[in-house]
Amino acid sequence: MTFADARAMFPVLQRLAYLNTGSFGPLSSGTAAAMAEEGQRDLADGRSGLAYFERGLALPDELRALKAELVAAPPDTVALTASTTDGCNVVLSGLGLRPEDEVITTTDEHFGLLGPLHASSARIVVVEPTAESILAAVSPRTRLLAVSQVLWTNGRILPVHELREASGLPILVDAAQSVGAIPVSVQGLDFVAIPGQKWLCGPDPTGALVVADPDALRIARPSSFSFSRDDGFDVAGAFVPRPGAARFEPNWISVATLAGLKVALTQAPDWSFERAAAQADQLRAMLAGHVDVVTSPEQATLVAFRPPDGRTAAEVTGTLMDLGVVVREIPRRELVRASVGWWTNEEDLDRLVAGLS
Amino acid sequence: MTFADARAMFPVLQRLAYLNTGSFGPLSSGTAAAMAEEGQRDLADGRSGLAYFERGLALPDELRALKAELVAAPPDTVALTASTTDGCNVVLSGLGLRPEDEVITTTDEHFGLLGPLHASSARIVVVEPTAESILAAVSPRTRLLAVSQVLWTNGRILPVHELREASGLPILVDAAQSVGAIPVSVQGLDFVAIPGQKWLCGPDPTGALVVADPDALRIARPSSFSFSRDDGFDVAGAFVPRPGAARFEPNWISVATLAGLKVALTQAPDWSFERAAAQADQLRAMLAGHVDVVTSPEQATLVAFRPPDGRTAAEVTGTLMDLGVVVREIPRRELVRASVGWWTNEEDLDRLVAGLS
Repeated sequence: MTFADARAMFPVLQRLAYLNTGSFGPLSSGTAAAMAEEGQRDLADGRSGLAYFERGLALPDELRALKAELVAAPPDTVALTASTTDGCNVVLSGLGLRPEDEVITTTDEHFGLLGPLHASSARIVVVEPTAESILAAVSPRTRLLAVSQVLWTNGRILPVHELREASGLPILVDAAQSVGAIPVSVQGLDFVAIPGQKWLCGPDPTGALVVADPDALRIARPSSFSFSRDDGFDVAGAFVPRPGAARFEPNWISVATLAGLKVALTQAPDWSFERAAAQADQLRAMLAGHVDVVTSPEQATLVAFRPPDGRTAAEVTGTLMDLGVVVREIPRRELVRASVGWWTNEEDLDRLVAGLS
Repeated sequence: MTFADARAMFPVLQRLAYLNTGSFGPLSSGTAAAMAEEGQRDLADGRSGLAYFERGLALPDELRALKAELVAAPPDTVALTASTTDGCNVVLSGLGLRPEDEVITTTDEHFGLLGPLHASSARIVVVEPTAESILAAVSPRTRLLAVSQVLWTNGRILPVHELREASGLPILVDAAQSVGAIPVSVQGLDFVAIPGQKWLCGPDPTGALVVADPDALRIARPSSFSFSRDDGFDVAGAFVPRPGAARFEPNWISVATLAGLKVALTQAPDWSFERAAAQADQLRAMLAGHVDVVTSPEQATLVAFRPPDGRTAAEVTGTLMDLGVVVREIPRRELVRASVGWWTNEEDLDRLVAGLS
C-alpha cells in the first residue's frame, strides 16, 4: 500500500486537516461500507435467524483474534468492550480492593481510568508521571499500578513493562493513546484497556480489554456472554464462566459495529508506526519555532503545546477548527493537542502551523 | 396513522412473519435512514468539531426526555444504557449488598437480571413467579425484590406496583418484555431496566435505566458522563456527580445510534398497545386448537407454547424459520415463544399456525 492509497481510504482528509485521533480516529470508506451493508441487512432481513446470531458470535471470535495479534496477546486473554473506561471498570470492580489497599497512579490520567479507580474504594496514590516517582511510591500496601502507556495530556510514553518488572506488582495499563499509534506488546502486563475508535479507527463505541489471567479476576458485571454455554447457570444466577477473557464482555455489540471494526483492524499498512512517528517528530520540529511544545522528542503520536500570544487553548482550538484544522484542548492544562497518524501528510501539518499565526 | 402505514414502516415484514421482537424488534425505514445518514456524516466530516460533540450531548437529553415520557418518569431519573443487563448491573453493583442480605427473585428470570444478582454477593431467594410466593418469601433480611414485569419465558405479567406497595421493599424491575409492549408507568418503582432494541424497535445495543432517587445509589462504574461539568474531578478521581440519573451512563453512544433511537421512540401510533394486545389474544385463540399454550389470557405480547407432536422446540423453531416465520425457543423449558407487535397482521399469525402442522 502506498501512502497515497492509504490516505485515500479516509474521506474526511480531503477536506480537513484531521489531527484529533486521540479523541476519534478517521473512519475509512471500507469501515463505513461494512457498517452500512450490515445496517441495510438488519433492515431488510431483521435481526434474527440462525445465520444472524452465528455471525454475531463468529465476528467477536475473529475480532478477539485480530486484537490479540495486534498486541501479541493470546486470543483467549482478550475481551471486547465498548471503551477503555469499560475495561478499567471491569478490572477495578473485579479486583475487590479495600480501603486499606493502595493503587498508584499519575497526575496525568484520564477520567476513564481515574473514575474507576475512585470507585474501587482503594486509596489512590497520585504521583508525577515518571518511572522514578511511581516506583518510589510503592509501599507494602500497594496492590496495583494503574497508569497510561501514553499520557493523553502530552503524549509521553511510560515504560509500563519496566514498571511491572521493577515493582513486581500487577499493572493496569490505560492504552487509550498507545495501541494503534505505537508498537505495543502486552506480554508481561496484567490488564490492558484498549479503545477501538481512536488509533485503530474503528466504529464508536468499541474497545478491548486484555486480562492475562482471566480466572484470577472476579466477574463483577456478568452478561449473557459470561457463562459457559455447556454448563449454563442455575436459578439463582450462579454460573461456570465461559473460557477465557470473553467472560468479561459486558454487552452485545451490533453486527454493523463488529463488521466495521473488522475492516478497521485489518487496514493499517506495514509502515504505519514508522510513518506516524516520523510525522509526529516533524510536527514537533515545525511547531518549535512558533509555540512552546510540551511534548518531549521521540514519544508517541500526540504533540501538545501551549497556546501562543496569550490566547486560551479553547480560542486556539476554535480558530483552527474554523480553518478546517481539527485539534483539541486539554481541559485544566491550557494545552492544545494535535494527533498525528500514518495517514497525516505535510499539508495537514502546514495547515496547523499556519493556523497558529 | 393507519395500520397499513404502520406496517409499511418495517421492510422485514414484507418477507417474513417476524414474531421475535422479544429478542430484537423490527427496524423501521426511518430508524435505518437516520442511522445511515449519521454514518455517512461521520465518514465525510469526521467524528469531531463543536457541532458533533454538541449533537452527541444534545441527543441524549432528548432521548432521556422521550423515554421518561414513555414510562411516566421524571426526565432526570432516566439514564441511557446499552441494555437491560447494563441497567441491572448498575443497580446491583451500586447497592452495596452483603452476604447477609437477601434479594427475592423468581424462577423465570433472564440471565440479564440473574447474573447481576449473583454478582451482588447477596443471598438470592428464588420463588415461583406469583405475587403470593414473592410476598411470602419476604424476611427481615430482604433488601430488594428483583423481578420481571413480564416474564420472558411465557409473557405473564407480574404486579410490580402491588409488590412494591405490599412489601414496602425497594424493587428492581426487569422491563425487557414490558416497555413498548404494554402501557408502563414507573411511578412508585425504584429501579427499572429497559431495553431499546426490543419493543421500542431501536438500534442495538440500546437501553435505559430509571433510578427514582439517583443520590441514593452509589456510582459503582463511573464514566466520563458521571461527573458534574462545573465541578469536575480531582487528581485521585473523586468527583461531584452530575445531576440526575445520567450520572450512571456507562459509555458514549454513537450519534448514529442516538439518531436512530430517536426516530424509533417517536414512531409508535396511539393505538399500539391496544392492537398488540388484541393480536396476542388472537394468536392464543388460534393456537389453542393446535398446541398446548402456556401463556394465560390477557397477559402481554409474548405467547409461548409447547412444541406439538413430540418435536423439540429447536426443531419447531428451525422448521418455522425455513418457512419464513421467525419465533424463538426458550432454552431449558422446551417452549416456543412468539412475539406479537402492533405491526403484526393476521397473515403473520396464519403463517405461524400453518407452519406448526
